[in-house]
Amino acid sequence: MTLKIYLAGPEVFLRDARQVLDAKAALARAYGFTPLCPGDLEIPPSDTRRGMGQAISAIDEHMMNMADAIIANLTPFRGLAADTGTAFELGYMCAQGKRVYAYTNVADDHHQRLLAYYEGNVLEGEDGRSRGPDGLSLENFDMADNLMLQGGIERRGGALIVHRAAPDRLYTDLTAFEACLKAMSGA
Amino acid sequence: MTLKIYLAGPEVFLRDARQVLDAKAALARAYGFTPLCPGDLEIPPSDTRRGMGQAISAIDEHMMNMADAIIANLTPFRGLAADTGTAFELGYMCAQGKRVYAYTNVADDHHQRLLAYYEGNVLEGEDGRSRGPDGLSLENFDMADNLMLQGGIERRGGALIVHRAAPDRLYTDLTAFEACLKAMSGA
Repeated sequence: MTLKIYLAGPEVFLRDARQVLDAKAALARAYGFTPLCPGDLEIPPSDTRRGMGQAISAIDEHMMNMADAIIANLTPFRGLAADTGTAFELGYMCAQGKRVYAYTNVADDHHQRLLAYYEGNVLEGEDGRSRGPDGLSLENFDMADNLMLQGGIERRGGALIVHRAAPDRLYTDLTAFEACLKAMSGA
Repeated sequence: MTLKIYLAGPEVFLRDARQVLDAKAALARAYGFTPLCPGDLEIPPSDTRRGMGQAISAIDEHMMNMADAIIANLTPFRGLAADTGTAFELGYMCAQGKRVYAYTNVADDHHQRLLAYYEGNVLEGEDGRSRGPDGLSLENFDMADNLMLQGGIERRGGALIVHRAAPDRLYTDLTAFEACLKAMSGA
């Protein structure tokens, strides 16, 4: 039995989503795994947008339930942090005790991205925490995203692999994805 | 036995985090529930930032494992979408089959926020999907955030309650939080 890996990430929103997901699936197979991708299964029709969204949610959860592992693409998506759907899926698989791996194609860590977001306009408060002008504290745990994500991965013996991709290949560069496959195969 | 509810959300980053979390906990108790809050338990010391982050992750997961339910604050955080830590926690509780409720203090739905993000610069492609100038497709499922979050909640019989809070009370207005408590108590 080959390990079934759920491939989570915001690639589904790309114009060439199918090609990128196919390339990821092919790479996973080359390492001896069985990939499970969002979009692989047909979505039953629904009368409403809301119903359609729920149907996709049901199918993606079903695929995660079938999978033994996840590789989550945590590359920041439309902002500072990972895609929330991918974060949800990573939490879902952590709770099931599955094997959990992740990668990001942005090398600046969470704290560095927050400093850039606040344009350096950050002050240390009386409580010893750094805060932006909005009063919100800046996480600084030497991690790529919120501590629940990287903590959940590393505490389970998985890895979050960081790679600096070219800006125009942020969602298509598969270097770090392949490094996850390599780590999972013990190669 | 009262229902134990894990209170997830980005309040932990507020300057007055303790007061806001205490107010949420008091409200939960007023409805007959036992609140479990991030920050309630002492974090064991660690030599590194990374180790500290992992220790907090362990404690928060432990609290979720003890809880019967979650109320997740999905109010957009530093950008378009929910806090990724909260999204992770919602997925974690969905996978455990716990009772799942959520709220947001921003009434514009996910699609409306995306339209604002792209400043209306959105075109329908040949595949029938609306895309921004970056080529990324816009979700439009009549939902408050990514479909995995709201789908996961509603398919389990929970609810995501939407409220329009004043801009300066985005993370402190507890109207929608209380509506979740009311829904869970059957009141």
